[in-house]
Amino acid sequence: MARTLPEEGRRRAVIESVEPQVDGGRFPIKRTVGESVVVEADVFADGHDRICCLLCYRKEGDAEWHETPMQALDNDRWRGAFPVHDLGRYLYTVTAWVDHFASWRHVLTRRTESDDIDVALMVGAELIAGAADRAQGKDAENLHDRAEALRTGHDLNARLDLAMGEDLARLMTRYPDRCQASFHERELAVVVDPELARFGAWYEAFPRSCSGEAKRHGTFAECAARLPYIAEMGFDVLYLPPVHPIGRIKRKGPNNTLAVDPSDPGSPWAIGSNEGGHLSVHPELGTLEEFRSLLTRAREHGLEIALDVAFQCAPDHPYVEAHPAWFRHRPDGSVQYAENPPKKYQDIYPFDFESGDWQGLWVELEGIFRFWIEQGVRIFRVDNPHTKSFAFWEWVIAGIKRDYPETLFLAEAFTRPRVMHYLAKLGFSQSYNYFPWRNTRRELTEYLTELTRGKGREYLRPSLWPNTPDILTEYLQFGGRPAFMIRLTLAAMLGASYGIYGPAFELFENKPREPGGEEYLNSEKYQIRDWDLHRTDSLKDYIARVNRIRRENPALQHDWNLRFHAVENDELICYSKTTDDLSNIILVVVNLDPHHTQSGWVEIPLEDFDVDPDRPYQVHDLLSNARFLWHGPRNYVELDPRTAPAHIFRLRRRVRSERDFDYYL
Amino acid sequence: MARTLPEEGRRRAVIESVEPQVDGGRFPIKRTVGESVVVEADVFADGHDRICCLLCYRKEGDAEWHETPMQALDNDRWRGAFPVHDLGRYLYTVTAWVDHFASWRHVLTRRTESDDIDVALMVGAELIAGAADRAQGKDAENLHDRAEALRTGHDLNARLDLAMGEDLARLMTRYPDRCQASFHERELAVVVDPELARFGAWYEAFPRSCSGEAKRHGTFAECAARLPYIAEMGFDVLYLPPVHPIGRIKRKGPNNTLAVDPSDPGSPWAIGSNEGGHLSVHPELGTLEEFRSLLTRAREHGLEIALDVAFQCAPDHPYVEAHPAWFRHRPDGSVQYAENPPKKYQDIYPFDFESGDWQGLWVELEGIFRFWIEQGVRIFRVDNPHTKSFAFWEWVIAGIKRDYPETLFLAEAFTRPRVMHYLAKLGFSQSYNYFPWRNTRRELTEYLTELTRGKGREYLRPSLWPNTPDILTEYLQFGGRPAFMIRLTLAAMLGASYGIYGPAFELFENKPREPGGEEYLNSEKYQIRDWDLHRTDSLKDYIARVNRIRRENPALQHDWNLRFHAVENDELICYSKTTDDLSNIILVVVNLDPHHTQSGWVEIPLEDFDVDPDRPYQVHDLLSNARFLWHGPRNYVELDPRTAPAHIFRLRRRVRSERDFDYYL
Repeated sequence: MARTLPEEGRRRAVIESVEPQVDGGRFPIKRTVGESVVVEADVFADGHDRICCLLCYRKEGDAEWHETPMQALDNDRWRGAFPVHDLGRYLYTVTAWVDHFASWRHVLTRRTESDDIDVALMVGAELIAGAADRAQGKDAENLHDRAEALRTGHDLNARLDLAMGEDLARLMTRYPDRCQASFHERELAVVVDPELARFGAWYEAFPRSCSGEAKRHGTFAECAARLPYIAEMGFDVLYLPPVHPIGRIKRKGPNNTLAVDPSDPGSPWAIGSNEGGHLSVHPELGTLEEFRSLLTRAREHGLEIALDVAFQCAPDHPYVEAHPAWFRHRPDGSVQYAENPPKKYQDIYPFDFESGDWQGLWVELEGIFRFWIEQGVRIFRVDNPHTKSFAFWEWVIAGIKRDYPETLFLAEAFTRPRVMHYLAKLGFSQSYNYFPWRNTRRELTEYLTELTRGKGREYLRPSLWPNTPDILTEYLQFGGRPAFMIRLTLAAMLGASYGIYGPAFELFENKPREPGGEEYLNSEKYQIRDWDLHRTDSLKDYIARVNRIRRENPALQHDWNLRFHAVENDELICYSKTTDDLSNIILVVVNLDPHHTQSGWVEIPLEDFDVDPDRPYQVHDLLSNARFLWHGPRNYVELDPRTAPAHIFRLRRRVRSERDFDYYL
Repeated sequence: MARTLPEEGRRRAVIESVEPQVDGGRFPIKRTVGESVVVEADVFADGHDRICCLLCYRKEGDAEWHETPMQALDNDRWRGAFPVHDLGRYLYTVTAWVDHFASWRHVLTRRTESDDIDVALMVGAELIAGAADRAQGKDAENLHDRAEALRTGHDLNARLDLAMGEDLARLMTRYPDRCQASFHERELAVVVDPELARFGAWYEAFPRSCSGEAKRHGTFAECAARLPYIAEMGFDVLYLPPVHPIGRIKRKGPNNTLAVDPSDPGSPWAIGSNEGGHLSVHPELGTLEEFRSLLTRAREHGLEIALDVAFQCAPDHPYVEAHPAWFRHRPDGSVQYAENPPKKYQDIYPFDFESGDWQGLWVELEGIFRFWIEQGVRIFRVDNPHTKSFAFWEWVIAGIKRDYPETLFLAEAFTRPRVMHYLAKLGFSQSYNYFPWRNTRRELTEYLTELTRGKGREYLRPSLWPNTPDILTEYLQFGGRPAFMIRLTLAAMLGASYGIYGPAFELFENKPREPGGEEYLNSEKYQIRDWDLHRTDSLKDYIARVNRIRRENPALQHDWNLRFHAVENDELICYSKTTDDLSNIILVVVNLDPHHTQSGWVEIPLEDFDVDPDRPYQVHDLLSNARFLWHGPRNYVELDPRTAPAHIFRLRRRVRSERDFDYYL
């Protein structure tokens, strides 16, 4: 009946429910440089003693932990925070112990009999002597003296004053007895990304359509000439579909037809030909050197280039012959093409991640990222990551980010929620999501609330895209130019990260290939398009204004501060974003109906904005530059989608009055 | 730049968010014998393949896992269940893998071209041949034959029929390729307790007050004579305060006074004297043999005896001299008594769990449990466990339950929520809780919803006590006899486990020692009381009826089935409990106002009870035996607290009509 005892049974502090964490610490949380990590935990001990609780953190690779005190909130919940100044990974955990000195002081004040106090002071002297033994130099001396004074002093009140002095408390805090400290069982990690992971406006464009002619393949140089146009609209990232040689075997023609004319350019996602594969550039676009030059030119315009990474091969990709083990072969000897019967994608061979040579495949694919990083690329938009190995993504992203922590990965996984979330957990910096299909107030409110307040926000950073080359939603198909303004405003003002696929967007291209479908007619995926960028009805100026508002208003550069407010008209949506210090308060009202003027009363939560309900406040429409004096929580708005489907108000809490006048008083 | 690859990168199934689990598997969940454990998990793989998902479970100590299939629900959520027939611990986990055969079959049906189908059938033949290699005997032959027929058959339709046959699917299910199966990262545990852990009515009584005379100390024999009285009221457990010798040094007098008369019996929680300590019985109660005989007699009446375990010592407890290291000594040489300044409990020395000899202390305290288990005790009510070492509780309960899985521990921790929950996680079978102080409809609804629907229900089993020797709530002090009926009904009908401290309860003793306090005047904690059990206004018959209703209605023997329903009067509370199959539906309406008749309309959720809204249904008041025909969801009730403060309806879904008459039709 002999029982094994634990090695140490006297650790009394319990640390539970540490937040934030993802799946018990299985995955890191995410932050951007300069943010802070606010950590909470349930921390308590048996009995009624006081505890001391610290948040510990360190940069991965650093030996030393930093410590910062946590403060007790209600109900045994504690909170602390640490800043993340550097790119890369930090680790954090919580430690706590019973603070015998604080417990003793706390109870001392409630003792009433002098005999009892006398004995208690001697107990305190022992605690202080213990700290003196842990201290060194002057502090040790100091503590020894105080212990002695507490033990031997003649005047009870003087001893009490000494015991309760702040000075002694500070000294004791420096030499706690931590031999029975508890630690949270798992060190938690946070990945710190560049600010662009949190805040940025993306613009997707096909470089081959930059020639200005529908018949001539554009080049990197012509794409570079398009940079000022994109930069003037205020974008931060220019995302290019794959720039590699395009397969010739089974190449698709316009509108995804099988009949191909020799002049058809094919889909950039059918990667590889005898001209090269994932490490080459399409000769018609230019040379690798010209690509690097495009990167440099883009940076001069304040633009990062995001490269599309699609891990799949055209039938004539060099890998198909060099690495047959990386593809699945059918009993008739052919290579298995991508399919979703009855649909077939004969121009695309997927990699077989169950291959016997999966190691060789992983290493090669990692090399592709490294190659382009060495050319200067920092951002990758990953095509359909949900159809590739999860284990591969976790491995490859961790490895790349260890060496190049500035790298960003955007996951294009328009798939089921669990899979979308899992890819984000595995390391993708940003995620496309269901925003394209959330159009009503209720849909938008519920979905954005989930994205910005749900547990997933710790690892899934949404990027809001009203359109992509694959997604022309019905809302855009039927809503005309106002629909594009509305969706642009929503994307840019709901999400700190958003993107559009242009010039199709600013020219409100809205014809689908077939009714009920979401593919574009004459999609650039299969043909070169000639866009008239100078059309007077282009949305480029509107987009430029919206992006300028984003850059000028820090409240719009975060997601977690989004709050929705009541409006008495379901076609209107009203929400706000504010900085923590309320120095920047943005209030947005959008008419979701692209066809009719809508009006209604919005309810402004004045208390949240620290606005005096008895004084007027100013709302300044940053779109129209109009200013209104509002008063109280209920205010009327009316929005005509044909002229201005939205107000983007900056709210100023205080309006000058006679009390601000020099001679008042 | 060489990177380490994982050992195996081809496991594609992901298993997340397995429920139930407590703190990522750190603590076991709890069930009672005969229940089942319903397990859910998010399970998915990359791409579009089908997966196979099994729930694995085994009794701890058994080598072999049992497996049962999990079914796909919505949104990549899967569910399975396993029964727990034996006392003790079971382990469970989830495994999943990509089911290539099922995936292949799923896609096969969508193929349209015969060439394509032909190649697909050959792919299937390879999968079947693979299964044949894993199979043995006749199955292996069978599978080989089918693979061959699929590969070489001439008739496409016949081959398709073979491929899609249920017979083949069943055979293939038996020999899956599990070499790339994923497992949930942690094996989860469930502790299986006797039914009494979930369902039981407790009665607390002081054996020393069983003599029938206020001046004479009762004995175990007299307590045994009280058993029929308690059993007739329908209780399952008789809980006795500590039965050990009571200290003489600093013994407390009536009403917790310091002035003691030599005849004062002292507090049973001041344990230990020269007559013995925690392993002895108080000589005035009788001998150890008489205690064992009380246990036997109790069982003859269907009653288990629960023993109070209070790990603390009177100053004259033998431990104080034998094990000075187990107590904290003050600088003046005295032993530190329990205190909460300015309050002092000089008659009680707490153990020092930070003692250098904590191991010796733990082993000794464990021995106390083992000693009483060997005397026949199966239930322990543990006094103030929150002021003792958490690590000790986890260790001692695990050890005892490994050897005696039928043992139950009730935690008396009326402390902060996190601590109360933590003790339950550590292993306590049941927990006292805040029920005594939840009296309004809103308080009861919120608290019982939290207890029965919150995550804590997996480990914290609430025991609802309207009173204890320490707790005479203001509701009971001021509400008279009706208040006791109301609180009894609520406790017994809201909680499958509940208890009362009697005879103070059935005789609605309601005088506090001081105004605003919750201590009883002339508390049995400090003196012997002479109760007149035969008073005509005693609640014993009411209690007996309520307990009989509990025993006769299985719906009342569970907690998780509790649902609250709307009533248009805040003084009325309406709720139901049902069995899963709806064969037993109990609907309770209680008037929470002990002073006035209250009436109102209750809303019955007919659809939840599967009651036809167009036909009448019967509600049978099991308290009054009255039967009412109700119709539709809204029904009127009126309750006079002086006569019957509650309806306990058994709802019968179907009322006989002409259609039930033999000759109808």
